[in-house]
Amino acid sequence: MPMKLYDLDVSGNCYKVRLLCALLSVPVKLVPVDFMSGAHKRSPIVDLNVFGQLPVLKDGDFILRDSQAILVYIARKWGGEAWLPTDAASLGLVTQWLMVAENEIARGPGDARLHDKFGNKLDIAEARQKAKRILTIMDEHLSAREWLVLDRPTIADIACMPYIALGWEGGVTLEPYPAVAAWIERIRKLPNFVGMPGL
Amino acid sequence: MPMKLYDLDVSGNCYKVRLLCALLSVPVKLVPVDFMSGAHKRSPIVDLNVFGQLPVLKDGDFILRDSQAILVYIARKWGGEAWLPTDAASLGLVTQWLMVAENEIARGPGDARLHDKFGNKLDIAEARQKAKRILTIMDEHLSAREWLVLDRPTIADIACMPYIALGWEGGVTLEPYPAVAAWIERIRKLPNFVGMPGL
Repeated sequence: MPMKLYDLDVSGNCYKVRLLCALLSVPVKLVPVDFMSGAHKRSPIVDLNVFGQLPVLKDGDFILRDSQAILVYIARKWGGEAWLPTDAASLGLVTQWLMVAENEIARGPGDARLHDKFGNKLDIAEARQKAKRILTIMDEHLSAREWLVLDRPTIADIACMPYIALGWEGGVTLEPYPAVAAWIERIRKLPNFVGMPGL
Repeated sequence: MPMKLYDLDVSGNCYKVRLLCALLSVPVKLVPVDFMSGAHKRSPIVDLNVFGQLPVLKDGDFILRDSQAILVYIARKWGGEAWLPTDAASLGLVTQWLMVAENEIARGPGDARLHDKFGNKLDIAEARQKAKRILTIMDEHLSAREWLVLDRPTIADIACMPYIALGWEGGVTLEPYPAVAAWIERIRKLPNFVGMPGL
């Protein structure tokens, strides 16, 4: 029985899980959740995830929340050492960038998009400032290398890319960050790449 | 040559690294950073960590930032499978809670303490509300189990504990959350446990 992904098409966090499944050719059954009507705040979703957030993964009896954690699970179960190497240094570096996805990217370009596209009440000036800061750091980092960690794509790239590529929906464009834009193009050219609305 | 930890004694993020090193009996050389004078925003710290944050770990030529990522590195290098099991399900679940430390706990009890103790300008009402929400979830989770993941302590517990135990410095006390308070006591009783100022 394939894994079930409780999913929202316009969510960058759901998309990163769909993308890794596509890249690894792992079958996954999408269960669309009616987010706009608040279905993620009601049963059965809150029974699977008390945080009331998407995505949620269900693999048999195993349930996991948080998109970064789901990437770790899928890469470890189906990807061997390719997408999530488990030696101490590589695993530490990949985790470092998963934290950037969870923190600086979510609070920067992610929040800017939530404000502009979905009307969330938040400090848009602060979100844009955080976006500028993390994009400046990433552009510097990627100007000397093709991928965030190691010399090949890992789940660090998959975790960090979506809300940066979707930033234009929050007024955060990539013209000042050519190395970031080139990195996104490299991800787009990976075999079996899939897109999402707005990307 | 032992690892170097660029450290601040009152930082819960630095403390969690010191705690794991103590629990694993891993030697680490602490390099105190004069945070109050802004030394973390200047060379040599920003040369090690462009984010200008503590802690930073230096192990020979290997440099790592972000406390959660540093826990992963140390557990993987010195802890075998004990503190960070690498099967897909366990690694996914531990990562899920590392993300709670990076996100909900930092933005809840962590931010409340930054406001009250260090005078950071932020929305204290929002921080207290987020603290209440994550503590309610964790109290429910821990009312049926001793540790956040599996039947033994992992780095999930080490990552999540400090800013919850320090929450009283931000007006977030644990009286309404007895299962969380009991979990902290279990961590305090681990062999080689060390404390920090305020805890």
